[in-house]
Amino acid sequence: MINEKMLKLGTKRSIIREIFEYGKQRKAEIGEENVFDFTLGNPSIPAPKEINEAVIKNLERKDAHGYTSAVGDNKFREAIANDLNKRFNTNFKFNNFFITYGAASALCSTLRALLNKNEEVITFAPFFTEYTVFTEAQGGKLVVVPADKKSFQINFNAFVKKINKKTKAVIINSPNNPSGVVYSEETIIKLTNILKDKEKEFGHEIYLISDEPYREIAYGVTVPFVTKYYHNAIVCYSYSKSLSLPGERIGYVLVPDEVTDSKNVYAAVAGAARALGHVCAPSLMQFAIADCANLTSDLKAYEENRNLIYKGLKKLGYKCVKPDGAFYLFVKALEKDAYEFYKKALKYDILVVPSDDFGVKGYVRIAYCVSKETIINSLPKFELLMKEYKK
Amino acid sequence: MINEKMLKLGTKRSIIREIFEYGKQRKAEIGEENVFDFTLGNPSIPAPKEINEAVIKNLERKDAHGYTSAVGDNKFREAIANDLNKRFNTNFKFNNFFITYGAASALCSTLRALLNKNEEVITFAPFFTEYTVFTEAQGGKLVVVPADKKSFQINFNAFVKKINKKTKAVIINSPNNPSGVVYSEETIIKLTNILKDKEKEFGHEIYLISDEPYREIAYGVTVPFVTKYYHNAIVCYSYSKSLSLPGERIGYVLVPDEVTDSKNVYAAVAGAARALGHVCAPSLMQFAIADCANLTSDLKAYEENRNLIYKGLKKLGYKCVKPDGAFYLFVKALEKDAYEFYKKALKYDILVVPSDDFGVKGYVRIAYCVSKETIINSLPKFELLMKEYKK
Repeated sequence: MINEKMLKLGTKRSIIREIFEYGKQRKAEIGEENVFDFTLGNPSIPAPKEINEAVIKNLERKDAHGYTSAVGDNKFREAIANDLNKRFNTNFKFNNFFITYGAASALCSTLRALLNKNEEVITFAPFFTEYTVFTEAQGGKLVVVPADKKSFQINFNAFVKKINKKTKAVIINSPNNPSGVVYSEETIIKLTNILKDKEKEFGHEIYLISDEPYREIAYGVTVPFVTKYYHNAIVCYSYSKSLSLPGERIGYVLVPDEVTDSKNVYAAVAGAARALGHVCAPSLMQFAIADCANLTSDLKAYEENRNLIYKGLKKLGYKCVKPDGAFYLFVKALEKDAYEFYKKALKYDILVVPSDDFGVKGYVRIAYCVSKETIINSLPKFELLMKEYKK
Repeated sequence: MINEKMLKLGTKRSIIREIFEYGKQRKAEIGEENVFDFTLGNPSIPAPKEINEAVIKNLERKDAHGYTSAVGDNKFREAIANDLNKRFNTNFKFNNFFITYGAASALCSTLRALLNKNEEVITFAPFFTEYTVFTEAQGGKLVVVPADKKSFQINFNAFVKKINKKTKAVIINSPNNPSGVVYSEETIIKLTNILKDKEKEFGHEIYLISDEPYREIAYGVTVPFVTKYYHNAIVCYSYSKSLSLPGERIGYVLVPDEVTDSKNVYAAVAGAARALGHVCAPSLMQFAIADCANLTSDLKAYEENRNLIYKGLKKLGYKCVKPDGAFYLFVKALEKDAYEFYKKALKYDILVVPSDDFGVKGYVRIAYCVSKETIINSLPKFELLMKEYKK
């Protein structure tokens, strides 16, 4: 009688949450330091102190808690434009930005704005599991291109077979959750060239939606800024990772002027946000981040963690593509069934996420946004796990 | 090519926003004190000082900016349950509450959770204009029962003609935006008795969705707590008005145990929130409000305003039902066409909202959440306006 789809979405626990809950219980039993919990992509580095200072400062505004405009605070939007223009040599103005409740709301508003019934959205495995939920709830169908397991860049042969007249948008996520891989400039050029050709062939727009909450978390590689490569690129961003503010739900949709009918696309994003019940993003936090738009948390610790765990696991004989960004490592399971491997790892109190829900079989995701000690102390356990498979 | 409905929602400016923008411009021209702007329902009383203190205190939590659980922080949910139980002699537990991005997100999540295609939602004129947007975007159809213009309680004769097998839910909003009227206990009993009968007649649940952001703003009358009168009542709340925090986007959906299959309804609300891109409500503000759940802003000023403007306008010969709550007055226009009346009022720099979008013709809404001076100084202007019509 109630909506069955929503009931299913609300009752089907995500495997990540399930493992997380198990981890909580296990920590209570044997002590936090003895559980090696690599489950959640929750920033372990605190927000920069300037954020809290800015919160306190902005509390004194008369409008600290008032509605901002539905599209977001103008000064905040200006600060974002200035920051990006400086770093990427772009030419954005404040009114290219629509402020959202983080990346999830940015993606949902964008998809709802673009999609008509039965249109398709393509993404590339491995991919963030919620893309399926967001796309279907906004009336579309998510089409998954299988992974290129050698590099976890894009499997272009498979992609050109999937793209068709119904394709309305393509979602990319680089640096990638769960692989940690950064799409190279070569990949972005190849992808956008195909999109340009297909736009001509099909005679309609194909939007490239770049979901990039991990943009600032990259180690010694450049993350190509997609709007410079493709006219119909729309960026969905969140401050959850770069400023370690996942709970504050602030992000944006960037609709560059180069997008076909960009004013209408922007207006449709605003209309979609309204239809989804997003009135305006939280005001005090908009004001605070406006003062810190050019900052990030001290992200170096993630790179140290990456080096530690990547080298450590490689040395033990584990196989994985070197991740250049985000805070994830995508490791080949030591048996075919990732879920079975995950369960064996549990015996050593190692908590990792089997890859099936990310659209690839036979891997596990390790979220290394944890303390250095957790990584160091986990390595002997990973060694025991490896030994069990070699028996 | 993009979604036409969303484009329309994003481009069609609401009349309220239009008037508001005009007001801003006019204030720049002739000085703020010379424009009598009764357009927006934006709290004029500041948040209690305890809120800012709680924000600063909670900034010191290690998890101040971290994700809370998707359903909301447990301590916050507990504080809400305790506060309601104390005031209304109810028996709620923390897990009856799902924390949302304010009332808009609460309503959208609830509607999406309940509605299947082509089902109907009934509401009573005058009504908050966004109900149409929210209901249609979640797949339903909004059916409006015409107003009882004598009292702005419920027009029951019209209601029983509209309710039918397709009716899945009824939305009420008391204290009401835009009329300021509080539904009496008699009204609530009559309404819920009809709903109980119709549930039996049709053999399925009919949910009563009570949108009550103005619950705490009532002057000497009791606002009946609906869950005590009806088993399938779901409450949508926001701290926007009672704590003067409209920009912070914190509210909740309350699904009492008495609701049929309440666990499933709650799960469907959670699933719907997920589908709409609501990850968790802003964390720092959840923690801060948890410490202030039993407080309100100093709401007395609204009552003073109500008395001033109600008595003042009555004395001048204006007609309106005495509002016992919220901060709105619904005044009969001095000519048939409310829009024409609104335009005449503009000549005296009085800014009010014509009633057409609220589902009633021939009235204007006066939002008296303004300074006392604005009201006092507006009365001679209202007198001139009245004189113009008496000429």
